[in-house]
Amino acid sequence: MDQLSIVILAAGKGKRMYSSLPKVLHPIGGEPMLARVIHTARALNPARIVVVYGHGGEQVRATITDPDIEWAEQAEQLGTGHALKMALPLLPQAGKTLVLYGDVPLTRVETLTDLVAAAGSESSLLTDVVANPAGYGRIVRGAHGIEAIVEDKDCNPEQRAITEINTGMLVLPTARLAGWLGELNNGNAQGEYYLTDVIALSVRDGITVHGVRVADSWQAAGVNNKLQLAELERVLQQNQARELLLAGVTLADPARIDVRGTLSHGQDVTIDVNCVFEGTVELGDGVSIGAHCVLKNVRIAAGTKIAPFSHLEDAVVGADCRIGPYARLRPGATLAEKVHIGNFVEVKKSEIGVGSKVNHLTYIGDAAIGSGSNIGAGTITCNYDGVNKFKTVIGDNAFIGSGTMLVAPVTVENGATIGAGSVISKTAPAETLTVARARQVTLTGWQRPQKKG
Amino acid sequence: MDQLSIVILAAGKGKRMYSSLPKVLHPIGGEPMLARVIHTARALNPARIVVVYGHGGEQVRATITDPDIEWAEQAEQLGTGHALKMALPLLPQAGKTLVLYGDVPLTRVETLTDLVAAAGSESSLLTDVVANPAGYGRIVRGAHGIEAIVEDKDCNPEQRAITEINTGMLVLPTARLAGWLGELNNGNAQGEYYLTDVIALSVRDGITVHGVRVADSWQAAGVNNKLQLAELERVLQQNQARELLLAGVTLADPARIDVRGTLSHGQDVTIDVNCVFEGTVELGDGVSIGAHCVLKNVRIAAGTKIAPFSHLEDAVVGADCRIGPYARLRPGATLAEKVHIGNFVEVKKSEIGVGSKVNHLTYIGDAAIGSGSNIGAGTITCNYDGVNKFKTVIGDNAFIGSGTMLVAPVTVENGATIGAGSVISKTAPAETLTVARARQVTLTGWQRPQKKG
Amino acid sequence: MDQLSIVILAAGKGKRMYSSLPKVLHPIGGEPMLARVIHTARALNPARIVVVYGHGGEQVRATITDPDIEWAEQAEQLGTGHALKMALPLLPQAGKTLVLYGDVPLTRVETLTDLVAAAGSESSLLTDVVANPAGYGRIVRGAHGIEAIVEDKDCNPEQRAITEINTGMLVLPTARLAGWLGELNNGNAQGEYYLTDVIALSVRDGITVHGVRVADSWQAAGVNNKLQLAELERVLQQNQARELLLAGVTLADPARIDVRGTLSHGQDVTIDVNCVFEGTVELGDGVSIGAHCVLKNVRIAAGTKIAPFSHLEDAVVGADCRIGPYARLRPGATLAEKVHIGNFVEVKKSEIGVGSKVNHLTYIGDAAIGSGSNIGAGTITCNYDGVNKFKTVIGDNAFIGSGTMLVAPVTVENGATIGAGSVISKTAPAETLTVARARQVTLTGWQRPQKKG
Repeated sequence: MDQLSIVILAAGKGKRMYSSLPKVLHPIGGEPMLARVIHTARALNPARIVVVYGHGGEQVRATITDPDIEWAEQAEQLGTGHALKMALPLLPQAGKTLVLYGDVPLTRVETLTDLVAAAGSESSLLTDVVANPAGYGRIVRGAHGIEAIVEDKDCNPEQRAITEINTGMLVLPTARLAGWLGELNNGNAQGEYYLTDVIALSVRDGITVHGVRVADSWQAAGVNNKLQLAELERVLQQNQARELLLAGVTLADPARIDVRGTLSHGQDVTIDVNCVFEGTVELGDGVSIGAHCVLKNVRIAAGTKIAPFSHLEDAVVGADCRIGPYARLRPGATLAEKVHIGNFVEVKKSEIGVGSKVNHLTYIGDAAIGSGSNIGAGTITCNYDGVNKFKTVIGDNAFIGSGTMLVAPVTVENGATIGAGSVISKTAPAETLTVARARQVTLTGWQRPQKKG
Repeated sequence: MDQLSIVILAAGKGKRMYSSLPKVLHPIGGEPMLARVIHTARALNPARIVVVYGHGGEQVRATITDPDIEWAEQAEQLGTGHALKMALPLLPQAGKTLVLYGDVPLTRVETLTDLVAAAGSESSLLTDVVANPAGYGRIVRGAHGIEAIVEDKDCNPEQRAITEINTGMLVLPTARLAGWLGELNNGNAQGEYYLTDVIALSVRDGITVHGVRVADSWQAAGVNNKLQLAELERVLQQNQARELLLAGVTLADPARIDVRGTLSHGQDVTIDVNCVFEGTVELGDGVSIGAHCVLKNVRIAAGTKIAPFSHLEDAVVGADCRIGPYARLRPGATLAEKVHIGNFVEVKKSEIGVGSKVNHLTYIGDAAIGSGSNIGAGTITCNYDGVNKFKTVIGDNAFIGSGTMLVAPVTVENGATIGAGSVISKTAPAETLTVARARQVTLTGWQRPQKKG
Repeated sequence: MDQLSIVILAAGKGKRMYSSLPKVLHPIGGEPMLARVIHTARALNPARIVVVYGHGGEQVRATITDPDIEWAEQAEQLGTGHALKMALPLLPQAGKTLVLYGDVPLTRVETLTDLVAAAGSESSLLTDVVANPAGYGRIVRGAHGIEAIVEDKDCNPEQRAITEINTGMLVLPTARLAGWLGELNNGNAQGEYYLTDVIALSVRDGITVHGVRVADSWQAAGVNNKLQLAELERVLQQNQARELLLAGVTLADPARIDVRGTLSHGQDVTIDVNCVFEGTVELGDGVSIGAHCVLKNVRIAAGTKIAPFSHLEDAVVGADCRIGPYARLRPGATLAEKVHIGNFVEVKKSEIGVGSKVNHLTYIGDAAIGSGSNIGAGTITCNYDGVNKFKTVIGDNAFIGSGTMLVAPVTVENGATIGAGSVISKTAPAETLTVARARQVTLTGWQRPQKKG
């Protein structure tokens, strides 16, 4: 009786999302809701996980490619009871089955562990106690667990005052499912088969239904429109911010940080207001992130400071660097230690060596820069000829004068100096000055332009 | 008795605003409070709208230029009763009069429709029920509507416990106004004529005062200082965000979006944190707006992605464009489909054709660029000679090398290529390479600069 | 009995901060918590202020260098009673002693003034009334002030229901301290000497303990982890925003402004969302700050508009300037009146005269620019030769064509014009045109690059 199956109902259209994306694929914390429910389910170590899909099924299956998931199609939306029925052929006879929902994304693993444990070899139901239960099915408890779920419209005055409600998440003995689901009927306004009605059958058959109260309403909250999605997104972000704070990260404002993925961190990390983290971000000891930064899939080593308005994506930054403000590191930017990247500088698919500086208004793309080099303001690696991309190689201790165009493929050797405003298309030899510059001429007879018409 | 007049009292100085701007002109949601009240009033289809102005009257009349507004001056601030009296000569004899306030900006049309309907051919008063009524006039209700408004200081213990208060918004039979306003006296601490006292006269004369409770306190909230203004701004923004969410727009954080004007949208629009929208903004299907963007009077067609930190103003962006991060589109920027505008790029008063790319560190001003052209990093249209502005014309499929100065007026013809670092002041012919570049020279005997002093 | 001593306990490690920085040095509102407590203490005009330090003592003393502070070391952390004992040798015999905490940063001066006054020549204790007192020492009041503080675990049911709790801040007659502190014992779970136990000794000795209730819980809230620090940071920011609003500053969102230092302002100042102010910032009449700006140690004169995404540090901006968007003023940027600094422009250690314009993609460093000059897009002052920095001087009414490299030291005289794309390394004479530009050549036989491989 220990074997756990989990069925995730994910077939709903989500009409009120007004979206071409199936409801369960809408992201929360940067991840589709359904993927989050699957992660949670997997943490319970079930024998199998079955997802019941329907609306937008192809998109759902194309997005969720985890090989351990089994899929059951619900071609017609005939209610939650019918949905679970679709999964039956994929379930073992033994053990118990936990039913989750692809649009209820924030349930904690601990809550579900408790729910599964409470069931024992019987049934269990997750409930919530709310201030205003109007519209929800009320939980009637008796001496032996839950006795009934009474729909709002069927409540007598005493029942209407009950504030404990049904969340829909439940555990049932798998062996009973076929029978109970077969007994459901759709004689209701919606013409649907309701899984909730199984509770009454469990009680009738003497299988106790153990009620477990969820600690927080948001753990059981579902998403039917973008307002509810935004509300749960904020709950998730708030929870994540709280965890970061308790782990020692300094956040200027816990209400103004967004982590859509995984943010790992060392000690004495400081994050100013309005930063957004996406994908996998690692921040070393003593890293500080200025206000209004956006970081996606970035690894930043200890002691590095990122100034405000910086945008880093798929980049690696070494220790003790100074980045920004207004720095943009694009995919493949790899910075060694003590590199300085200043304002209005873009770096793409380039390696920059220890202590090199690119401080102003520069584009570095498809380049390798050694250590100790200084790249003047307005330098551009002309890496693209309209059809192909070429590489720029700059050695150690080079000095590139401002406004230099480096026409790739081209090499600036160690210790070379390039005069300001040069267009360099051939190798600049080591330890020399290379220039490409017109002579300065003053035209004395010249008249300033006059205002026209 | 059906004719509706609306009088908006807008003469107050707003001393605690500490501003040289008249109080009613302070913006909420990007619009002067008075303009918002006028919009609301107009939605009731009144026979006339009279605004009573006083402090800063010239500024008010210069700002509110709607031709359907009539103006009554209240030269001295002698109270709300006196203010309404100033409007009397502009009102018809028949029908009823609704009194609104230029500093109560968020009343819903539906609320006022109810208030007007409740009056019938008698009087009505908008009331609010609050947790802490201290300081407010209490509503004493009897068998036939409101019996009295009792000022806080005059309350007996029973009255003091009343939590229903006067909001000041009311409807009165217009024919009665002259008489009632004439009876008001200013024997109070402020020496003012209070419009509120008319309620007692209505009751005395057997004209029932129907009380209508407002659904939300903010609908009746007035602005006396910047704190109250900021509070109502947040209510407005929250309401707007909620509407966008329920209409299917994805907002990363409903508490961090500002819409100061009109934001219309297609399906599957996504807006990340901290975006500000001003004026009229239209976002097509599937448009996504990255974090920290500022958009004003912009039309963006379907499928376009705006990356973070972009600033667009009075611009038109075609479908499937890629804009930003750090893109600045200034007035007159008009982009066709599939245009790419990258980081640190400014576009002003220019048309850019289908599929053309301007990806890095560029200034495009007063230009026309054809389709399929690539504008290299660091390109600048030198459109200004100090007194006049000139146009740059770039054809289709042109390739402008990086660091090119295009000295307008100048033309780069179809398929032309410009070598990096060129200054182009004459026509660059079609399908050819044009360069203006000095020869690269290496000075072997040269010594690096030494540290001074 | 009037002489006031203040002892600030600041020896705790703050283990749950998970930081190498001593707890009391963690900043709130941009200032170490301890510094803030010292400022508050100083406002009470005490005869002396003694700080008891311990963990990270060297760092604490190196940070807090105020000459009027006396220091007492608590080498071992044996509790608050022991900490105060360490300060005893530095206290006078007469008068009274107020005990504050280096990790309770937001107590108002008025609250402490009341607490000191309430003590008279006896004792006083600051208390708080909270919704959930579980875990706190309850205040038992009698006919003559506070009778006892009962720890949570020692409470009888009646005491457990008390919601008034001990905050730890208290005033004691200095002459009694030596005796009372000597009587404390550490027979408790933590093995610490608790200052709180002195209250019982005061009562025993007939020295009335006057209870003073704090107006807001945050005034007595301490910081033990980053979550609590972030919560108090928000309280501080909210309080500051409220003060700015009531003084007439327009804030687009009071929940989205951070002031870490001093923000002084004239009339009709407007601040859009998400701005961060650090150090000393002065904003003149009518200044407006756009969304997402970061300002540190900046003085901005009347009428100047800062557009979004601007970053100003250690700069002075004259009246009626137009700055940004994406403008970066670095230390030593000094702008006269009516200067325009546009997008993607960096200014460092430079003076810019009346009405001069630097509108696009430019680096101005170590320069002096006169009045009425126009600096074209892409201009760069090449101020650095790899080891030394040099100055660029530009006169009045100069016109620098776009893409100009000014190789310092260099002078552009009054009224000089520089042709676009020039590298200028020698003086450009007044009222003339100076260029350094290669001839434009078209290569007709040239073939476009082909896609490789």
